[in-house]
Amino acid sequence: MEQAEIGLIGLGVMGANLSLNIAEKGNRIAVFNRTYAATEQFMKDAGELADRIIPCKTIEEFVAAIRPPRPIIIMIKAGDPVDQQMELLKPHLEKNDIMIDAGNANFRDTIRRFDSLKDSGLTFIGMGVSGGEEGARHGPSIMVGGTEESWKRVEPVLTSIAAKFNGEPCVDWLGNDGAGHFVKTIHNGIEYADMQMIAEIYGILRDGLNMSAVEIADVFAKWNKGRLNSYLIEITEKVLRAKDPISGRPMVDMIVDKAGQKGTGKWSAIEAQNMGVPATGIEAAVAARSLSSFKDQREAAEKILGLPASGDHGNVDRDKLIDDLEQALLAGKIGAYAQGFAVMAEASKEFGWSLPMPTIAKIWRAGCIIRSQFLDEITSAFTKDPDVANLIVTPAFADMVKDTDGALRRVISFAALGGMPVPALASALGYFDAYRRGRGTANLIQAQRDFFGAHGFDRTDGADKHHGPWGSGLADF
Amino acid sequence: MEQAEIGLIGLGVMGANLSLNIAEKGNRIAVFNRTYAATEQFMKDAGELADRIIPCKTIEEFVAAIRPPRPIIIMIKAGDPVDQQMELLKPHLEKNDIMIDAGNANFRDTIRRFDSLKDSGLTFIGMGVSGGEEGARHGPSIMVGGTEESWKRVEPVLTSIAAKFNGEPCVDWLGNDGAGHFVKTIHNGIEYADMQMIAEIYGILRDGLNMSAVEIADVFAKWNKGRLNSYLIEITEKVLRAKDPISGRPMVDMIVDKAGQKGTGKWSAIEAQNMGVPATGIEAAVAARSLSSFKDQREAAEKILGLPASGDHGNVDRDKLIDDLEQALLAGKIGAYAQGFAVMAEASKEFGWSLPMPTIAKIWRAGCIIRSQFLDEITSAFTKDPDVANLIVTPAFADMVKDTDGALRRVISFAALGGMPVPALASALGYFDAYRRGRGTANLIQAQRDFFGAHGFDRTDGADKHHGPWGSGLADF
Repeated sequence: MEQAEIGLIGLGVMGANLSLNIAEKGNRIAVFNRTYAATEQFMKDAGELADRIIPCKTIEEFVAAIRPPRPIIIMIKAGDPVDQQMELLKPHLEKNDIMIDAGNANFRDTIRRFDSLKDSGLTFIGMGVSGGEEGARHGPSIMVGGTEESWKRVEPVLTSIAAKFNGEPCVDWLGNDGAGHFVKTIHNGIEYADMQMIAEIYGILRDGLNMSAVEIADVFAKWNKGRLNSYLIEITEKVLRAKDPISGRPMVDMIVDKAGQKGTGKWSAIEAQNMGVPATGIEAAVAARSLSSFKDQREAAEKILGLPASGDHGNVDRDKLIDDLEQALLAGKIGAYAQGFAVMAEASKEFGWSLPMPTIAKIWRAGCIIRSQFLDEITSAFTKDPDVANLIVTPAFADMVKDTDGALRRVISFAALGGMPVPALASALGYFDAYRRGRGTANLIQAQRDFFGAHGFDRTDGADKHHGPWGSGLADF
Repeated sequence: MEQAEIGLIGLGVMGANLSLNIAEKGNRIAVFNRTYAATEQFMKDAGELADRIIPCKTIEEFVAAIRPPRPIIIMIKAGDPVDQQMELLKPHLEKNDIMIDAGNANFRDTIRRFDSLKDSGLTFIGMGVSGGEEGARHGPSIMVGGTEESWKRVEPVLTSIAAKFNGEPCVDWLGNDGAGHFVKTIHNGIEYADMQMIAEIYGILRDGLNMSAVEIADVFAKWNKGRLNSYLIEITEKVLRAKDPISGRPMVDMIVDKAGQKGTGKWSAIEAQNMGVPATGIEAAVAARSLSSFKDQREAAEKILGLPASGDHGNVDRDKLIDDLEQALLAGKIGAYAQGFAVMAEASKEFGWSLPMPTIAKIWRAGCIIRSQFLDEITSAFTKDPDVANLIVTPAFADMVKDTDGALRRVISFAALGGMPVPALASALGYFDAYRRGRGTANLIQAQRDFFGAHGFDRTDGADKHHGPWGSGLADF
């Protein structure tokens, strides 16, 4: 029997869908699952694709079924199980075989795993896969980290299964060891911020303008035809329009407002903190999800503090506000994406990856959860100027900021006065206003620090006198 | 010669000042420094306090000079040097001797050091000291972590040197191993937020109302007599009033607006992220300092984007705005402190410390950088209800939030429309408005997550149907 181009371990929903996608694109694939019953069921469900799938009962059989050097995708629960699976596999592998972790790993684990194989002759790819179950089945966005040689081995298969944007495959090699999983982590961090800003806008429409879910769906439907066109806006319309089959009411109104999170948002925030790069949009989104989960505390607080002041909603020009909200959301996205890309630029230096910014924007244009027209604009901006210090000073985005920040200001003001929380949107405005101001207010902070801790400061005139004339207790004047 | 009550290694400014403070309060102290010349100079400068100080040339002499069990304060550069010093000391120590790290250690290092001594018969105290050089000399706030037994040994000396608030010493034992350094870290995180909010208010006065440094000093002087009365407000007035001896201009106007940071703000943010407790005020402050340090980028961005819109400053009622700013700063402080205490409450569970919230507020009332009247109010609130879920739902602070959040709203609105960055103040408003809203907007996020990732959700009616009717591609309906 002809050998498979690639193998896959773990036939959960994601693994099964990825396998079907691989087979459908004309590749032979060997599959293995801890329990063979699941493999049998999978083969039954595979229909005519089963012809290109080799189901294996044992690891020996599985390894033998793959053409060396063997790329083997591990698609199981992130964490220890991956290490255990690697240990089980290793004795069966040969020089240049490639273990590929396609789960949502922390990139620091990926670096560790990559390094652990250094002298074994084997190698490791950390592969971020975005797009959920649908993406895995029909075309995800794929972020690859590992050696360039191992990438060359898997490039044809991955290119065949990846999503396409205007014909260009949404997969690429981003750098060594943890590069792929790091970029996937920041992708998710940005996704958190994007979703949070949509939720904030939804909150203003719902609580500020008293609109129903279906009315709000109409607004998002309209926006999806404009500059906000994106998967997240599209599904926001859909979920807002959906009716609960039990109550007949809008589905969203029947869902408890406690958001879950799985760690990538938090990792993004922590790594940004580690490197000293502001990622306040992601931080605001993670905090908002945490606060949402403190439902009991919130209900108790509402009883004690009352709902926030409701502002002068009555007097507002509704159509004008809705236009402002569209532009404010675009402005907010610019802030969050600019921060995310700045974090990746710094990580690229820190971890020696040479992350290709235009390529990252490119492979996020389709397949993944944050896919959008907007990412095509980011691709153009970074293609023209890959080393620019920040997205918001590229000509196209500078214009967009200037076009939209007025609306963002009005929305922040409206929400602040009306008691609707907009932490992520506000973080974007704070970022713009601090970033575009050559003379900020940290001179006062430096004065305070010098006063109480003799930390010293630089002078605007360059003179060589680094402490203030504060007097008492400070030694050097 | 009578033995010393305590020893201290490292006669830098902080160590020297702490030693003089210890001697001044009637305690005998043995001191040791790597270079004896520094010890000799220190003894010369000690004046009549030298009578109670035993200068030691060797570690052997130093250890012999201290009454067992020996408490030995190590006051040197944080990090590896502390581990190296501990290794040098260990062979000379006896059962129950106590090495005390009084530097700005990361509490995770403190836990590691504490644990490393477990079977040695020796023990370790991680001691946070706040108050800068002045505090060390005349009365710092001291946060102690270690065994209760070791605390009992050092309690008399530390009580004698600590700052006093209405006669109560600002020192206490907060829990095992890293408790003291953790609380010091959060103290510093709150200090970052407090200073950033002051800088934001200063920015509005300077750039929004075009006030001079001295005029702004007058405002802070007035505020320091009111509810904002605190060390930071006091020194803000002083630094704003100071004149640069070289140019004759206000000192703050001659200081470059690039703020330094040493890590405790970042550690606070990272630990809060690790535990999933929102600390957006600290995050905003850390981000603002980072942005301030990107001075070249900011100057370039101002050229490209222009300064932010300047709003309608002309029409503003200046006195009313200044009143609002005072209240907004108080509201912002409530947000930042509430978050800081919530982070400590969670850490207390996570690390098994039983951190005493009223005690922490108590020992911050004097000596440390964030000392204030405000902390006395926090002390009262936590004393009445030590297990309250959040500071802002205690009766006193709930009233304060209700009194001041209107002003905070107006200030955020004014700053947003006028292009002045207020990220930390805005984070407080976002926190209040999300925290006091029983029904938030995370239901939309849960719907989106279920749509693309089949993550599931809870229903408001408790029915057992955890996925939405989204159709296409999602398996279970």
